[in-house]
Amino acid sequence: MSKPAVVLLSGGLDSATVLAIARSQGYVCHAISFDYGQRHRVELTAAQTIAKVLGVASHRIVKVDLRSIGGSALTADIAVPTDRTHEAMGQGIPITYVPARNTVFLSLGLGLAEVVGSFDLFVGVNAVDYSGYPDCRQEYLNAFEQLANLATQAGVEGRGQFRIHAPLVKMTKADIIRTGTQLGIDYHLTVSCYQADEQGRACGRCDSCQIRRKGFADSGLSDATRYV
Amino acid sequence: MSKPAVVLLSGGLDSATVLAIARSQGYVCHAISFDYGQRHRVELTAAQTIAKVLGVASHRIVKVDLRSIGGSALTADIAVPTDRTHEAMGQGIPITYVPARNTVFLSLGLGLAEVVGSFDLFVGVNAVDYSGYPDCRQEYLNAFEQLANLATQAGVEGRGQFRIHAPLVKMTKADIIRTGTQLGIDYHLTVSCYQADEQGRACGRCDSCQIRRKGFADSGLSDATRYV
Repeated sequence: MSKPAVVLLSGGLDSATVLAIARSQGYVCHAISFDYGQRHRVELTAAQTIAKVLGVASHRIVKVDLRSIGGSALTADIAVPTDRTHEAMGQGIPITYVPARNTVFLSLGLGLAEVVGSFDLFVGVNAVDYSGYPDCRQEYLNAFEQLANLATQAGVEGRGQFRIHAPLVKMTKADIIRTGTQLGIDYHLTVSCYQADEQGRACGRCDSCQIRRKGFADSGLSDATRYV
Repeated sequence: MSKPAVVLLSGGLDSATVLAIARSQGYVCHAISFDYGQRHRVELTAAQTIAKVLGVASHRIVKVDLRSIGGSALTADIAVPTDRTHEAMGQGIPITYVPARNTVFLSLGLGLAEVVGSFDLFVGVNAVDYSGYPDCRQEYLNAFEQLANLATQAGVEGRGQFRIHAPLVKMTKADIIRTGTQLGIDYHLTVSCYQADEQGRACGRCDSCQIRRKGFADSGLSDATRYV
């Protein structure tokens, strides 16, 4: 029997891998992406392509204006840091952190899960090469799972138990790339760069680009990322 | 010393009262309202007026398209139930329940709290005359509070402990109305109806109207609600 799942799909490398993993586990996937006022809005075009290529039951792009809240280099007029060393990236929470972003996205995913009758949410958070975001840790995900069961009609009526699946949480970027490649993902289609241009070409210098580039190098696989 | 607070302000009776309570406790209030594709969008006009009259440090109306998720009489083409008895309203979760709505709204409020440097979120949920929504119960609010401290930069860095204030959670509608009236609220400005018209006039027949009308009757105060 195929079970419905909701997959948070940004258009980046991680969430594409998560979609492929959920598909490989037999889930019928409802993808959800967010048009949140991000700089790298071109990732949404990537998300549409990935959803089509990997195969989903539905794909929604939900508008949520995080720009009206601000507070991040991704949603306000703050420059994206570039050329940081891996050591510098490992220290503290960077200015690209979007306040409460994963909580907002998981909440919207939870709403969709209720509508499509799913108890399984897949999210591509990763606590190894993760840029130091607080909402990418396992204990955060556990707390969200607990909340989900109290927050919803489906949870309260006892029709099931919500599960937040974060299959990448303990993987290195290289492991993620190897896994996705085995599942047939063409990472050329994905956009990770925080300031990708309109054609989806990466800057190669922001934290996200650097982590991605290192991941490909460590994986021993060729990197088809398009750079400006 | 005045502390900053984030207040979720819908434009209805409950959240207006919460704003007045937060102000009376000395908080400098940053109000946040949501344009989520609700039927009764006129409540946002009411929210703007209330924010102005009661006094806030800032007021944002954040767009979040819950209509693209659907699943509720408030955000999809499903009729709002009318003329239900109070007994019928007390049974089960009604079709006006918007999947994960309070979780989405609290998450966005949490993001704003990080930006304005606040650890105090005020929300007008109520578990007595509450239409049976799961995300209006104290245990749900406790779970969100726990999540908030794990989800955020401010929480992780230990700069403070987030608190979700729900001063109405155990009050009857009549108590809420009496409290707000003592704090000087003109409830004439608020819109509770799920299908209010463009002038903000109430239908008098949906669950929200009926609960409000009964609240005024029980409070012994006069009801200035404008009906169609």
